[in-house]
Amino acid sequence: MKNSFIAVLVLLILSGCNDSKDDSSLKINVFNDAQIKNSMIKALEWQEAHPIFAIHPTDWTNGAYYTGVARAHKTTKNMMYMAALKNQAVHNDWKPFKRLHHADDIAISYSYLYVAINEKRRGFADLEPTKNFLDAHLYEDNSWKAGTNRSKEDKTILWWWCDALFMAPPVINLYAKHTEQPKYLDAMHEYYMETYNRLYDKDERLFARDMRFVWNGSKVDRKEPNDKKVFWSRGNGWVIGGLALLLDDMPEDYEHREFYVNLYKEMAGRILEIQPSDGLWRTSLLSPESYDHGEVSGSGFHTFALAWGINNGLLDKKHIPAVKKAWKAMAACQHDDGRVGWVQNIGAFPEPASKDSYQNFGTGAFLLAGSEILKLQ
Amino acid sequence: MKNSFIAVLVLLILSGCNDSKDDSSLKINVFNDAQIKNSMIKALEWQEAHPIFAIHPTDWTNGAYYTGVARAHKTTKNMMYMAALKNQAVHNDWKPFKRLHHADDIAISYSYLYVAINEKRRGFADLEPTKNFLDAHLYEDNSWKAGTNRSKEDKTILWWWCDALFMAPPVINLYAKHTEQPKYLDAMHEYYMETYNRLYDKDERLFARDMRFVWNGSKVDRKEPNDKKVFWSRGNGWVIGGLALLLDDMPEDYEHREFYVNLYKEMAGRILEIQPSDGLWRTSLLSPESYDHGEVSGSGFHTFALAWGINNGLLDKKHIPAVKKAWKAMAACQHDDGRVGWVQNIGAFPEPASKDSYQNFGTGAFLLAGSEILKLQ
Amino acid sequence: MKNSFIAVLVLLILSGCNDSKDDSSLKINVFNDAQIKNSMIKALEWQEAHPIFAIHPTDWTNGAYYTGVARAHKTTKNMMYMAALKNQAVHNDWKPFKRLHHADDIAISYSYLYVAINEKRRGFADLEPTKNFLDAHLYEDNSWKAGTNRSKEDKTILWWWCDALFMAPPVINLYAKHTEQPKYLDAMHEYYMETYNRLYDKDERLFARDMRFVWNGSKVDRKEPNDKKVFWSRGNGWVIGGLALLLDDMPEDYEHREFYVNLYKEMAGRILEIQPSDGLWRTSLLSPESYDHGEVSGSGFHTFALAWGINNGLLDKKHIPAVKKAWKAMAACQHDDGRVGWVQNIGAFPEPASKDSYQNFGTGAFLLAGSEILKLQ
Repeated sequence: MKNSFIAVLVLLILSGCNDSKDDSSLKINVFNDAQIKNSMIKALEWQEAHPIFAIHPTDWTNGAYYTGVARAHKTTKNMMYMAALKNQAVHNDWKPFKRLHHADDIAISYSYLYVAINEKRRGFADLEPTKNFLDAHLYEDNSWKAGTNRSKEDKTILWWWCDALFMAPPVINLYAKHTEQPKYLDAMHEYYMETYNRLYDKDERLFARDMRFVWNGSKVDRKEPNDKKVFWSRGNGWVIGGLALLLDDMPEDYEHREFYVNLYKEMAGRILEIQPSDGLWRTSLLSPESYDHGEVSGSGFHTFALAWGINNGLLDKKHIPAVKKAWKAMAACQHDDGRVGWVQNIGAFPEPASKDSYQNFGTGAFLLAGSEILKLQ
Repeated sequence: MKNSFIAVLVLLILSGCNDSKDDSSLKINVFNDAQIKNSMIKALEWQEAHPIFAIHPTDWTNGAYYTGVARAHKTTKNMMYMAALKNQAVHNDWKPFKRLHHADDIAISYSYLYVAINEKRRGFADLEPTKNFLDAHLYEDNSWKAGTNRSKEDKTILWWWCDALFMAPPVINLYAKHTEQPKYLDAMHEYYMETYNRLYDKDERLFARDMRFVWNGSKVDRKEPNDKKVFWSRGNGWVIGGLALLLDDMPEDYEHREFYVNLYKEMAGRILEIQPSDGLWRTSLLSPESYDHGEVSGSGFHTFALAWGINNGLLDKKHIPAVKKAWKAMAACQHDDGRVGWVQNIGAFPEPASKDSYQNFGTGAFLLAGSEILKLQ
Repeated sequence: MKNSFIAVLVLLILSGCNDSKDDSSLKINVFNDAQIKNSMIKALEWQEAHPIFAIHPTDWTNGAYYTGVARAHKTTKNMMYMAALKNQAVHNDWKPFKRLHHADDIAISYSYLYVAINEKRRGFADLEPTKNFLDAHLYEDNSWKAGTNRSKEDKTILWWWCDALFMAPPVINLYAKHTEQPKYLDAMHEYYMETYNRLYDKDERLFARDMRFVWNGSKVDRKEPNDKKVFWSRGNGWVIGGLALLLDDMPEDYEHREFYVNLYKEMAGRILEIQPSDGLWRTSLLSPESYDHGEVSGSGFHTFALAWGINNGLLDKKHIPAVKKAWKAMAACQHDDGRVGWVQNIGAFPEPASKDSYQNFGTGAFLLAGSEILKLQ
């Protein structure tokens, strides 16, 4: 008996994503609460031991990661998550990154806000840098808003790429709630609509990553090999994951709440329709054959958003099996040492991943998914 | 044979504190030197990989932890301890935390002093911030000393809670010895007596945590369910652990040394009297039934102090079995990955712990205990 | 079968350097690419989890370590190496350490240059502090150059000890290449010749560590017990390892390239002549019996340099077995948890090491060696 247990461990060391043989040979119920919590903590421990970022510890990559850590703490109350959140907040002096007009650079403040709200030691949390960033970001002019930024001609709105809808809105929404200042929510909605009107494809019920992927009927329109439009899994994961975070803290009576509820439901329905049979979404949503393997960052955001919807009555319980299938497949992408593999590298459109490819935001997506899967039980 | 070895490992992953079955099934002599050293190093490695603090890396929680790391190095000379001590000292710029009137904020300087004394590279250690803190702490007025601090009416002396007797006195004592300035020791003694006179219960030979727990015979006196006084295990651990550190570096001919020797002997006798049969003290010393499980931070400080007393001739060797029993039980509270569990969270009076609850100061207490248990052999 | 696999793992935990029994019982081909890469990554992960330095994270010890990490990334492209390189560069603000006249303090810039060259995000890398250091180091007067430094009478040249030839020249060379400013290379050559003329022993084809070990025929000349001269393994490893790094980035048409090629070939031949039968060099090259065990930091630099020479056509392929023997023996010095043991502590002449003794620069030497062993296949 122990032998086979060890045998499985040894196999797992070598096993990759969707390696159903190993997975099935593993006599563990991946939907056992303790099992899910253990997978999540191992993901945290591995990621904390393998710091990574694009350009700075406060950039969007840690922003997404620590948002996942915060939600994992909110569900489990495991002190390891809070210790990690406090540690990075203090080492970062509670500062967002530096580009005041760039949504990426405020994403980290979701974790600062979470700590400030839940760790009430007097004079500990410092939300001043977050406030200053948000005020500049929302209320000061900049070349993108003005449309005078010619570096890229499509940067004529504040949030010109869909990822931005995860990076800034949930932070603004949580800040508005925490400080009881609805004006921030109103400012957010205005910019959100600019992005929605520009990048949301009502026919496909998916977001183009940016203007490069919006068709104008010209022959230079970007197409997948199968002639379909390019819809990036992680890009849409940013949007629907951000919607779940938004709705979770948005006042029930907020005048525009219905817009976000409907957008969430439209996208959730579409994401479910196109879920591959093994449970994990490919990096190109409408051209899964391009890179035909599950990818964990996009799948993690989708799984988080769908499970959140079921847990909050926006999505029918009949979808539980689909969501559980996704988690089971994601769990099989985690290495035995805790690393969450099969994460597409930093990018802006569909590219392949590998068993070993990891990123902190992939771990964040894994933690976000787990934090809602736990509530499905 | 290997199978049973693995079986034990697997069991240990699931085993908790005082789980005598697993413990006995483990065919390892916990008093073997290599075994004790291995438990200590695993505790260090786990804690270094899981940074945690109350409000800042230089606060009292790391102060207590790195005091344990320093003593572990003093006994074992294992370079891993010194590497960790130097790493935190340099990253903290050799600075205590910021409240100049608060004993908690100077505790970290015990580790700075230890490094300065033992790592003699020219221009490496910087004790200036420690000196400046001590001079302000001991020789400048503040509202607590003046008794004009009305935030809490019982804060009318510098060290108004018993934990303070671990946080500041050993640092002051070591600084006085290192810089050969007895005046610091004299200042320390004056403040120590203020606390002793206020919080030491001569009948119970234990310290009340603060004035809230000192009885005045009024009906609002805080009582345990069994009508006894509230004596907190960790609170008294802070005092007796601090006494062992103090006496270890206090000049043999210091005029007030006898006072500390007698206080140590009184408390040590009492701590031994009330040791539970499984070796570990409960969080409420006189109401063990309140939370009837061993707690490792208090027990670690008691075990350190008692073993130190035996190793230094202040306590009879007949108590060795009691001290070894405590260590054996503490060792069973360490998870297989090195985590020291069953540590009561940050607090100020008896509260329960759990198999998974950890704190860096609990790991520090574990290292302090191990550093003297090694010398018992 | 699994049992024996586990048995080996368990044995390895206890196995030390050159423990041929365990090594042979391990049914793994240490020259299998995946195996070498796994040993290297485990070394990186262990070292990142166990930070250590002499006086500061930017000192020469991390300089040598992260040079190894950079070369490991150059060969394998494993993102874990780049994540570690970026992480330390950002936390160090891209700054060398502080003594502008000291070669040790610029060694860390090799890693900064590597990141700058390979991670092209706009405004990410900052080479200004490196430029400022190099300009002061090479072009400003100081007491050592002037010979007016009387702290040690032999410090009358800039690079007065042979270790310096690893610390500064490869950085200067890479900076000259990256910025296309040959003048830096010319300045480097001038100082290199000063050290060569002073410390290189043409008869022994080895470098004295510093003037204390250069014989003047007086009776105070330092001798080994066997009356031979004192040639330190790591000291010569610094030189020949530095030569491999230098030649790797030195323009083919550089006027003085031939000098470095010849020096490399002379030393390589000598290092091979005196390689002990088990593959690992002792800390005293001409008195191996003084401390008769393999030492990994010196052996790592030798192995790196020799493998690099074979891979680049400067050394005959017939030496492959000798180099592979060295790597196999080094691999046996790595603990099961990844720690690279048998590394002589910080020093300036032959001293013994132990199974547990480690240093970050030893891990760097291990990574350097692995990065070229991989190319031997």
